[in-house]
Amino acid sequence: MKDLKDLSALQLNTRNAVKGGSSSSSKRTKWNVPITDFARLTHNPIRAIVEGLKIAPNPDKPLIALSIGDPTTFGNLKPAPEVIDALRSVVQDGSHNGYGPSTGFPQARQAVADYVSHQGDVTANDVILCSGASCALDLCLSVLAGPGQNILIPRPGFSIYRTLAEGFGVECRYYDLMPDRNWEVDLVQLESLIDANTAALIVTNPSNPCGSVFSRSHLEAILDIAEKHFLPIIADEIYEHFVFPGQEFYAVSSLSKKVPVLSCGGLTKRFLVPGWRMGWIVIHDRDNLFQDVRKGLANLSARILGANTLVQGALPAILKNTPPAFYDDLVSTLYRHAELAYKSIKQIRGLRPIMPGGAMYMMIGIDISRFPEFETDLEFVQALVAEQSVFCLPGQCFEYPNYVRIVLTVPEEMIVEACKRLEEFCQKHYKLDDNVILEQQQHGFLAKLADY
Amino acid sequence: MKDLKDLSALQLNTRNAVKGGSSSSSKRTKWNVPITDFARLTHNPIRAIVEGLKIAPNPDKPLIALSIGDPTTFGNLKPAPEVIDALRSVVQDGSHNGYGPSTGFPQARQAVADYVSHQGDVTANDVILCSGASCALDLCLSVLAGPGQNILIPRPGFSIYRTLAEGFGVECRYYDLMPDRNWEVDLVQLESLIDANTAALIVTNPSNPCGSVFSRSHLEAILDIAEKHFLPIIADEIYEHFVFPGQEFYAVSSLSKKVPVLSCGGLTKRFLVPGWRMGWIVIHDRDNLFQDVRKGLANLSARILGANTLVQGALPAILKNTPPAFYDDLVSTLYRHAELAYKSIKQIRGLRPIMPGGAMYMMIGIDISRFPEFETDLEFVQALVAEQSVFCLPGQCFEYPNYVRIVLTVPEEMIVEACKRLEEFCQKHYKLDDNVILEQQQHGFLAKLADY
Repeated sequence: MKDLKDLSALQLNTRNAVKGGSSSSSKRTKWNVPITDFARLTHNPIRAIVEGLKIAPNPDKPLIALSIGDPTTFGNLKPAPEVIDALRSVVQDGSHNGYGPSTGFPQARQAVADYVSHQGDVTANDVILCSGASCALDLCLSVLAGPGQNILIPRPGFSIYRTLAEGFGVECRYYDLMPDRNWEVDLVQLESLIDANTAALIVTNPSNPCGSVFSRSHLEAILDIAEKHFLPIIADEIYEHFVFPGQEFYAVSSLSKKVPVLSCGGLTKRFLVPGWRMGWIVIHDRDNLFQDVRKGLANLSARILGANTLVQGALPAILKNTPPAFYDDLVSTLYRHAELAYKSIKQIRGLRPIMPGGAMYMMIGIDISRFPEFETDLEFVQALVAEQSVFCLPGQCFEYPNYVRIVLTVPEEMIVEACKRLEEFCQKHYKLDDNVILEQQQHGFLAKLADY
Repeated sequence: MKDLKDLSALQLNTRNAVKGGSSSSSKRTKWNVPITDFARLTHNPIRAIVEGLKIAPNPDKPLIALSIGDPTTFGNLKPAPEVIDALRSVVQDGSHNGYGPSTGFPQARQAVADYVSHQGDVTANDVILCSGASCALDLCLSVLAGPGQNILIPRPGFSIYRTLAEGFGVECRYYDLMPDRNWEVDLVQLESLIDANTAALIVTNPSNPCGSVFSRSHLEAILDIAEKHFLPIIADEIYEHFVFPGQEFYAVSSLSKKVPVLSCGGLTKRFLVPGWRMGWIVIHDRDNLFQDVRKGLANLSARILGANTLVQGALPAILKNTPPAFYDDLVSTLYRHAELAYKSIKQIRGLRPIMPGGAMYMMIGIDISRFPEFETDLEFVQALVAEQSVFCLPGQCFEYPNYVRIVLTVPEEMIVEACKRLEEFCQKHYKLDDNVILEQQQHGFLAKLADY
């Protein structure tokens, strides 16, 4: 309690300094309901960018949304019947309506421990069930990184890390993934970001938005840096096992000799039930470096009292009964879509798709200098919607301008149609060098005029 | 972004001051994974107290747990068949497996808005669905109260407020409920706690652990204080409508003329499905004082991406189809149990039960001076388990010593048996005045001996 008081007093001073100060003995004199920095700074950059777009589709063409990372949106991908059966029987038997332990039922935690045995030796005690993988990431970040600390996150990367971190006054430092090297990490640049306030390194593998899969040796190189700088890793492995032929998935934890790892996963993507909100943290901590972290995670899990108990009840059957063919079919479909999209888009002048090795996304570079009507990927995306009713997420959503991300989970005919429209769009707007120069001169001239 | 940087820099200084300071340009030199204050200070006092107890039950008597606030534990109270049917059909039709909006599906939010029309005029936009009522409270506290601020919470009161607040460095200030006046608030003492850093007043009605129900006039008196001091109210109304004959439930918001109210509720208790994690916040804000709060709540909901979508899908049918007789039966059962327990325990020397007006709990005062073998309610509870295998939560769990809380949801025969055992226990340990004096003298003498 003493600690808390000290902290409160200190933070009170901080707050007064920020707000301009008000004596704590005075009282409020009017209605003014300020919100906390935590609530103000927890913001979703994707939503902010997308809401800022003018996206009225062309009314003559049905909208194709290649933006939504929800594999269930179009109904072409459905959960396995075994998964539905497992849940239905728990609903029916009434055995799981009550509260569960805030870290999850032991049987459900054990089922996850068995399911993730490829990650390393773990038991039920090393598993914490969460309300979705977002909640798992939230807990991992909240336990490791506080105000004034920083975390290392990939660029391009999924925006949730920023959403989760910034609320706590945690600085996000971006390490670069290199598009020309299958989105491997720029290890030198990564290492240059680390200081004494670096609380954790986040590794997303396979990657959203890149669809890349790190090789064993590359993961080992990342682990070496983490080990050298005594940095725990948060492994976002929600796309584990989503790898295309010729690729292999290695869990970070399975290669770690010393570095403690919190691996985040869940049913969301692989089992095609994102709305069910079943995620988990798996604690890999051979050398007992995470003793406090374990306690902290258990503490934090008490804030919302855990994951839906029906899904917990069904979890052992879901993980055990889903046939391997189901997973294989899903990955085959995604691979087929990836190849289809890649082959088509590669032919389009001004675009540079990067063939993914897994997950369910593809990044496409835009040679923006060849599209002089558009200054940014945002403008490109906006015009693509207005003319062709195709919506991709602009690279800015992933801190990566001049790219767009498309999802590969939409039905095949949509991919075919979207590629056709993309081609038409690019053909219309692509300019050859001379034209570009001319246009740019004109643009510069007009811009100058506008200045006056 | 500028704000964030300023804040980070400031908090970094704070942190360094707390931790003794380390230059941010240096690097870590050994494995040491500290956890955040947020994780360390988010702690559940009930768990800490219960885990500290030596509770090995008497092996000759089956344990009767009167401690568990989960109405489904013993199987005597079951959800309505309409509720199960509603969920089963959503599981079956596959319509709700995907992500929902982080604040909930519009239809589900509208269904809640209709269901809570007794609280005041609200629309779907005023409802935010959460992963259980705990998550609803978490969001409300997180948006309103930050480091250095304080919140006003009832004593005795439910420990979750403390669990949620202290992680953020928010001070909990306790206003007293008066056992001799049906647990009404000591308004003078309440008002004395308020200062410029008071961020919110939490009103729990009906009360856990007291089972009390505030009258209309008493709620109006509380609202007057909130209005005078410009204090928003967080109304924990998860037990709304759990009121016994002769009592009436008023939603705080329904009586508020000016004070903005966030009301937290959910399916948990009334529908007997706590594990389903379906809670909600209803925003009552006639005068638009909560504009920022609305945004903040939406921001925060993005951290875990909302409640289980299957339950959301079933919510309209659950709220519409559950027959009134189901609710009436539940309240009748609780009332019968309350009367039964009250009548029995009133006869036991040394105990002073306080008849509840609602919810599902009863507080029982212990005249601890008549039980000289026990210094605290903890010791009383411990001995009661060891001898009689009856477990009640000690008052300390609710910041209220010399009381115990029992739950009224257990099967009737358990209540009868528990009361019988309580009587036997108290008869054995109760001491008349002279004995008490003698014992205390001896205890004092022995204690003195032990000092040397």
